Amino acid sequence: MSSTPAAPGTTALAPAIVARLKRTEDGLLPAIAQQYDTGEVLMLGWMDDEALHRTLTTGRCTYWSRSRREYWVKGDTSGHVQQVKSVALDCDGDTLLVRVDQTGAACHTGDRTCFDADVLPLA
Amino acid sequence: MSSTPAAPGTTALAPAIVARLKRTEDGLLPAIAQQYDTGEVLMLGWMDDEALHRTLTTGRCTYWSRSRREYWVKGDTSGHVQQVKSVALDCDGDTLLVRVDQTGAACHTGDRTCFDADVLPLA
Repeated sequence: MSSTPAAPGTTALAPAIVARLKRTEDGLLPAIAQQYDTGEVLMLGWMDDEALHRTLTTGRCTYWSRSRREYWVKGDTSGHVQQVKSVALDCDGDTLLVRVDQTGAACHTGDRTCFDADVLPLA
Repeated sequence: MSSTPAAPGTTALAPAIVARLKRTEDGLLPAIAQQYDTGEVLMLGWMDDEALHRTLTTGRCTYWSRSRREYWVKGDTSGHVQQVKSVALDCDGDTLLVRVDQTGAACHTGDRTCFDADVLPLA
């Protein structure tokens, strides 16, 4: 349990990666989770250096919860785990794309993705 | 040209949408752009209320540039436009998924997506 994201350079994340990350003022990067075979965009979470390190080394997607202020392994309570297939950093170094194999629903509402329920009207 | 994102409630964005958005302290939401037919995740940009309003009403993806501090219609300088197919708000109201038809490269490097070049090693 932690109350703040890890400061850059204080985790076991490889220094070559640490140097490329451009974080928010809170020390976080948005991480897009995508189903690796269907291409579905499942959800967006946030990672600090430690969450990214755990995601790269454990095979399970780990996020930083901004509301609960703690690390959160997707599926630990719901069983709806995300097995990591690949992780890519974008051209600016400020966004992650995590391709995963999602068990069951990605959304806490029970929907497959967090984007299923609220399509906005185009004018 | 503007130097700060629009304050909530000061734009023509529909009040029913305004009330559902949960913005960063800067007044922004991350917006994931996805190619509507192939499922490719192209890039992540940022939208304030006004950029979302323009995206919903003009058919062209409009972002807020955090570095240039101005609105930015994707493709206006490069020709690599994003025609909007649908816009969805996630379950928490804090992330947008914009399905688009991307002309040419989405990335300023010339890559098709901003996530093509830097795949991180899994341990």
